Amino acid sequence: DPNLKVFSLNSNPDLAKQIAEHIGIKLGKCLVSSFSDGEIQISIEESIRGSEVYVIQSTSDPVNQHLMEMLIMIDALKRASAKTINLVIPYYGYARQDRKARAREPITAKLVANLLETAGATRVLTLDLHAPQIQGFFDIPVDQLLGVPTLSEYFMSKQLDDIVVVSPDHGGVTRARKMADRLKAPIAIIDKRRPRPNVSEVMNIIGDIQDKTCIIIDDIIDTAGTITLAANALVERGAKKVYACCTHPVLSGPAIERIQGSAISELVVTNTIPLPEEKKIDKIVQLSVAPLIGEAIIRIHEKLSVSRLFN
Amino acid sequence: DPNLKVFSLNSNPDLAKQIAEHIGIKLGKCLVSSFSDGEIQISIEESIRGSEVYVIQSTSDPVNQHLMEMLIMIDALKRASAKTINLVIPYYGYARQDRKARAREPITAKLVANLLETAGATRVLTLDLHAPQIQGFFDIPVDQLLGVPTLSEYFMSKQLDDIVVVSPDHGGVTRARKMADRLKAPIAIIDKRRPRPNVSEVMNIIGDIQDKTCIIIDDIIDTAGTITLAANALVERGAKKVYACCTHPVLSGPAIERIQGSAISELVVTNTIPLPEEKKIDKIVQLSVAPLIGEAIIRIHEKLSVSRLFN
Ligand SMILES: Nc1ncnc2c1ncn2[C@@H]1O[C@H](COP(=O)(O)O)[C@@H](O)[C@H]1O
Ligand SMILES: Nc1ncnc2c1ncn2[C@@H]1O[C@H](COP(=O)(O)O)[C@@H](O)[C@H]1O
Repeated sequence: DPNLKVFSLNSNPDLAKQIAEHIGIKLGKCLVSSFSDGEIQISIEESIRGSEVYVIQSTSDPVNQHLMEMLIMIDALKRASAKTINLVIPYYGYARQDRKARAREPITAKLVANLLETAGATRVLTLDLHAPQIQGFFDIPVDQLLGVPTLSEYFMSKQLDDIVVVSPDHGGVTRARKMADRLKAPIAIIDKRRPRPNVSEVMNIIGDIQDKTCIIIDDIIDTAGTITLAANALVERGAKKVYACCTHPVLSGPAIERIQGSAISELVVTNTIPLPEEKKIDKIVQLSVAPLIGEAIIRIHEKLSVSRLFN
Repeated sequence: DPNLKVFSLNSNPDLAKQIAEHIGIKLGKCLVSSFSDGEIQISIEESIRGSEVYVIQSTSDPVNQHLMEMLIMIDALKRASAKTINLVIPYYGYARQDRKARAREPITAKLVANLLETAGATRVLTLDLHAPQIQGFFDIPVDQLLGVPTLSEYFMSKQLDDIVVVSPDHGGVTRARKMADRLKAPIAIIDKRRPRPNVSEVMNIIGDIQDKTCIIIDDIIDTAGTITLAANALVERGAKKVYACCTHPVLSGPAIERIQGSAISELVVTNTIPLPEEKKIDKIVQLSVAPLIGEAIIRIHEKLSVSRLFN
């Protein structure tokens, strides 16, 4: 369909190429660069009048740069008479600022939703929002894909025995349950608590992990503190082997060093955020969500249900 | 008035301090930092409920970072029940993207206006918008101060003889006229034109500059191409001495090198954008607009006219 156009900005050029290949079209031509003073310059190099446009961009580090690229691109598309402006945001940044935890805090995840709508977005497709409530921050349709199917398939292909899927905290139990169903495995939960203020946390493990192959699953791994402590605790309590996986490999600050030094034998991630060379270590396996996103774009464009297929 | 609060973000901490001193209050306490993955974290450390809040931030390089700091700050202030959120934007970035010069271009200056309003800004105070039309991009009150009075005062104090104020292009004639009125001097205009496509520009000078002291005035000096070519042309055509001045010293890329190597004997700028150490060269004099902005804040807070005072 010549009315379907897919554009890539600067966060995920490889993923975007794979998505276009999956759909069987060429990426739209556009130039996203910077003026000498750092202001973003965007020029769209083909007509998009009346088109259904998909823009692929994660708001990953450098998050403010990537977000502004997206906002300016939306503005340019809107003024060039795109029929619909569909944002494909594999990783939705600022998602952890989704509530006022303390007085006078911003709710940046909501602010970003408002900014995207103000610029002119008409639909959002994303993966594993840190909180599903963020869908409600938008007044336009939001489809959320999950990393669990892609991650589960990989572990199924490894044909591991005696698996337990582990949630690193209470907030992730639903996600662990979804993966466990696919792997036909039980779950366990890391139950951290602080007995008294200013006393260090106690790591309790709910569920049987003795001599089991554990797969810890989280949505985001950022500085990797939580996941490496969890992995080490599992091994100490008798786990045979520990895998870890997540959808969004933020991997900032000490993350790589911590993972290298931890009991994690393999970390499986997706490419919602690309790994720069220095983060491509032997322990990390990266899976592509291009088929998943490509399929979702085709289904949205053909006005078929997305949730049926993937969740 | 305890209901008047002034906060500084990260673009202009020194200017903000001077403004607060001029007004005779302390800067509001807030922490603007970054998480390990580059996401901005803002925490306001004093109650602002019911206050009239002024936030000082230029959208200068790194423009996207500075803009997001401002948007997130506005969100936090709004949710903390500020009565009014007044943005003091000494330098309004993205102002040169104020129209569709070519097909499928964004109008980022308008996008930014929409973003600031969406976040919750209730008023804007700024200096020398690149195009005065940008005031109309907002649906909230915008007051524009001018650099001309501050720059003119400096040149008056030098007691120069035989002055001509020079506009480096046709777009800047009104500004040059304003300065010339203050200095009681005539004006000249650099009249560039390209005789045929792909033939280099001819620099024609309209007005008498023979043996005169020229003061070239512009709003923004970015890569300094225009201003240094103009200065050299003036000296070639017989000017005695050439000063240059502008409100906003963007000074990106080759700017400093070009200024050093040019016929400009002194460049006078304001502190709407701070100069990092490597740009503080002997030829550049920086004047503070803190008294101007401080006075404007006092007048706005007291519901007096700003335009009467300064334009
Ligand atoms: N980019 C970030 N990096 C680290 N912590 C963050 C980030 N954004 C928000 N937070 C904090 O993470 C907490 C929310 O995380 P969670 O409990 O996992 O939803 C809040 O206390 C936030 O202040
Ligand atoms: N940050 C920037 N640096 C250099 N040129 C720019 C920038 N932003 C916009 N422009 C270009 O500057 C021109 C407008 O400048 P002007 O004619 O001075 O208003 C347009 O052609 C823009 O594409």
